[in-house]
Amino acid sequence: MPQDKKKNPRPKAETPKGFRDYFGAEVTERKQMLDRIAEVYHLHGFEPLETSAVETVEALGKFLPDVDRPNAGVFAWQEEDVPGGGRGDWMALRYDLTAPLARVAAQYRNDLPSPYRRYAMGPVWRNEKPGPGRFRQFYQCDADTVGSASVAADAEICAMLANALEAAGIERGDYLVRINNRKVLNGVLEAAEVRADQADDVLRQIDKFDKVGEDGVRQLLTTGRTDDSGAEIEGVGLSDQQAQPVLAFLTSKGADNAATLANLRAAVGGSVIGGEGVDELAQIADLLASLGVGEDRAVIDPSIVRGLGYYTGPVFEAELTFEILDEKGRKRQFGSVAGGGRYDGLVERFTGQKVPATGLSIGVDRLLAALRAKGLTGGDAAGPVVVTVMDRDRMGDYQAMAAELRAAGIRAEVYLGNPKNFGNQLKYADKRAAPIAIIQGGDEAERGVVQIKDLILGAKLASEVSHEEWKSQPAQTEVAREGLVNAVREMLARW
Amino acid sequence: MPQDKKKNPRPKAETPKGFRDYFGAEVTERKQMLDRIAEVYHLHGFEPLETSAVETVEALGKFLPDVDRPNAGVFAWQEEDVPGGGRGDWMALRYDLTAPLARVAAQYRNDLPSPYRRYAMGPVWRNEKPGPGRFRQFYQCDADTVGSASVAADAEICAMLANALEAAGIERGDYLVRINNRKVLNGVLEAAEVRADQADDVLRQIDKFDKVGEDGVRQLLTTGRTDDSGAEIEGVGLSDQQAQPVLAFLTSKGADNAATLANLRAAVGGSVIGGEGVDELAQIADLLASLGVGEDRAVIDPSIVRGLGYYTGPVFEAELTFEILDEKGRKRQFGSVAGGGRYDGLVERFTGQKVPATGLSIGVDRLLAALRAKGLTGGDAAGPVVVTVMDRDRMGDYQAMAAELRAAGIRAEVYLGNPKNFGNQLKYADKRAAPIAIIQGGDEAERGVVQIKDLILGAKLASEVSHEEWKSQPAQTEVAREGLVNAVREMLARW
Repeated sequence: MPQDKKKNPRPKAETPKGFRDYFGAEVTERKQMLDRIAEVYHLHGFEPLETSAVETVEALGKFLPDVDRPNAGVFAWQEEDVPGGGRGDWMALRYDLTAPLARVAAQYRNDLPSPYRRYAMGPVWRNEKPGPGRFRQFYQCDADTVGSASVAADAEICAMLANALEAAGIERGDYLVRINNRKVLNGVLEAAEVRADQADDVLRQIDKFDKVGEDGVRQLLTTGRTDDSGAEIEGVGLSDQQAQPVLAFLTSKGADNAATLANLRAAVGGSVIGGEGVDELAQIADLLASLGVGEDRAVIDPSIVRGLGYYTGPVFEAELTFEILDEKGRKRQFGSVAGGGRYDGLVERFTGQKVPATGLSIGVDRLLAALRAKGLTGGDAAGPVVVTVMDRDRMGDYQAMAAELRAAGIRAEVYLGNPKNFGNQLKYADKRAAPIAIIQGGDEAERGVVQIKDLILGAKLASEVSHEEWKSQPAQTEVAREGLVNAVREMLARW
Repeated sequence: MPQDKKKNPRPKAETPKGFRDYFGAEVTERKQMLDRIAEVYHLHGFEPLETSAVETVEALGKFLPDVDRPNAGVFAWQEEDVPGGGRGDWMALRYDLTAPLARVAAQYRNDLPSPYRRYAMGPVWRNEKPGPGRFRQFYQCDADTVGSASVAADAEICAMLANALEAAGIERGDYLVRINNRKVLNGVLEAAEVRADQADDVLRQIDKFDKVGEDGVRQLLTTGRTDDSGAEIEGVGLSDQQAQPVLAFLTSKGADNAATLANLRAAVGGSVIGGEGVDELAQIADLLASLGVGEDRAVIDPSIVRGLGYYTGPVFEAELTFEILDEKGRKRQFGSVAGGGRYDGLVERFTGQKVPATGLSIGVDRLLAALRAKGLTGGDAAGPVVVTVMDRDRMGDYQAMAAELRAAGIRAEVYLGNPKNFGNQLKYADKRAAPIAIIQGGDEAERGVVQIKDLILGAKLASEVSHEEWKSQPAQTEVAREGLVNAVREMLARW
């Protein structure tokens, strides 16, 4: 790690590219949200698991999503040479919370309860090009059930996701968990007699349904289509008859779960795997009803296709349904904040055995952004009451005031900078978002009183009234020293 | 990152050497402790700061304590080559929370309030040889005030440390914050007319006071000493007269702060810096009294020498004073769990300006071990009520029971493994530390009742009574289905 000490005597004080710092309310708002979600997970019987940030590259494996190059996308380094010869292991920072779960599930398979319900919350790292709002360290928040093949596990996770979103502060009606099943799609492909080498192409066209509609997808699946720019897009080459089950699948969402399930059953035709998939969705719908989760909160919806490739059974996605204003002031749907589903390959890499698992992942930054957009986070994160220092020699008196306030549960501190310039003390209180400043000069001390300045009212008055009015009703009152705590408590209760 | 895929087709499921996983209560107990401490910090006006795990090696600097080799002891890697030529930056995992604070204090110096009170909690990484109980990732918990030269900042931190220990669960009387001042020691060396090249030697001998006592140190400072094994140890070469202030310093702890301060004032003689140090300690003692922190909680104690080299003013250490049994069953003092002090060099590397700072660091793992030793952590971390599955087709009924219990705030889950073998379900409940199992077979369902099995009482009876007695008072009761939640609540209240 050479540093040219002569050319560059002073290091740059900079966050590394793609990383950022979180201050004050940014930390506490996220913590509060995650605490509330953790409480829901705990109530559902899930246990916390905290693995370390570092894994061997060998254990992490090469399944970072959307990356073709092996081991690209992670931060990795080689351990120092082993004493006695040989090169050290390659180590890396985890890129998600699923890979460490896979390692843990394999490593402790004889000790963990089975099924093993666990949740994990923490940072993960991606060695990718940073972009606006795209960082190389970010939080994930996962819950998984390992070792249960029952769709009851999937239904439970969907219900828990709905409960978690509500606990975080998203109101019922402002979100929807939409559930599909990879097996149904497989059944549809089977019913359509799609060849194995056509399947990827068909999936790609299905993904365009939102953009080009039913007729568009029909053209793309069969003979091709001319797009808006006049370009010819080649079709997959299915017959109209083959395209029919796929289009039936895409348009199968009915007025309620019963209608959707009937449409899906028609779409999969005689496919065994497809029928199994529809049965599973029907069971999940029943179990959600038993769990008290209505169709206004979680619903069968065949349009959830994204990421289906990774999964082997039920999949789901939670969407926030309210509109927000984007950076250009246009209304738009907030969109997806969580997703998940059933997958089998978790432990197999390590042990050779398939272990059924299902899980969910909440997009921490997206959900937090949604809460902020709705004004649902902790709010303005009240600063401390600031006890100003009028007389440097009476620091003990000021500290005693702060201690009294804290003993009453009120956040408080003494100004600890150079007290010479009183204006600086008030500027400091402003920067701290202090609701109140306490002032006691020598005169006040002699008379046994303190001045209590309401900084919130002060700011309000300053912005709303003329200077003269402001002077005539200053947001400052004098109280007896022994009444300090009560007076501050009353003033805080105003806001 | 080459992996020989042919020789080693299956990766090893192993935590990397020196790292470990934390399960269930291990996670929640630490979280609960840190939450309580954070609440105290917040109440004192400190703001959370969360920097990322990764820093540039340049910004981290080379001040990892106790390591002579530059950049050894950290996990570091070089970024990929920069497009267009040039090598990438060296990056590293942070080795403590102070180096990132230094970077932040320099980077945002125009935006942060001054003084800046911040706390930080999180993992740090050390690339060191792991040992028993010594891991390469561990938690730190720091609070620092940057930009205040006032000893009021030091006093506040000492008081806050005492409050934090009590909030974590350590009772008053079971801990003591001991405070010294680097300037007093400098004054003593000045009064003793110790040459600059002798100072390190003198400090080394002072550190042996606990082991060899006053006479031993006197010999080591002057002409030398024969140790227990008969080996001759060379002395530093001070005269008896020179040794006198050092010995006076070492034995200056009096019955109370006033006595100690008088002894220290005598020990520093006419040294200006020493006098300043004693004045500062006297002010800290006064301020602690104003803050309501008595000498039973924080006291002036010149025996705190450890780590003095790093600090420039007041230093302190929190010790737990109760005895625990070590691994061999011998009683011993628990010892130090936190420390800190005043330092100046924080931001200087970056900006060239000295910025006064003072801070504390709590040894998270040690404090947690202390709480465990005293039985003061969350306890046995109650498992969920487990609803067993007697009839696979009635999964909805079982899920509804679990949902009802959760709605009443009771942690509950349905068994999601293969329900065929009921014994496995009870074994599972045991592994989960479930307090209660719910059982409803077809017969019970028909009669509209459920069986509630008290697993805690069951275990108790099984260990205490004979098999016949056990059979005659099984820890299992039958209640009407609609009475399930109340019955579970009552049973949980027993314990």
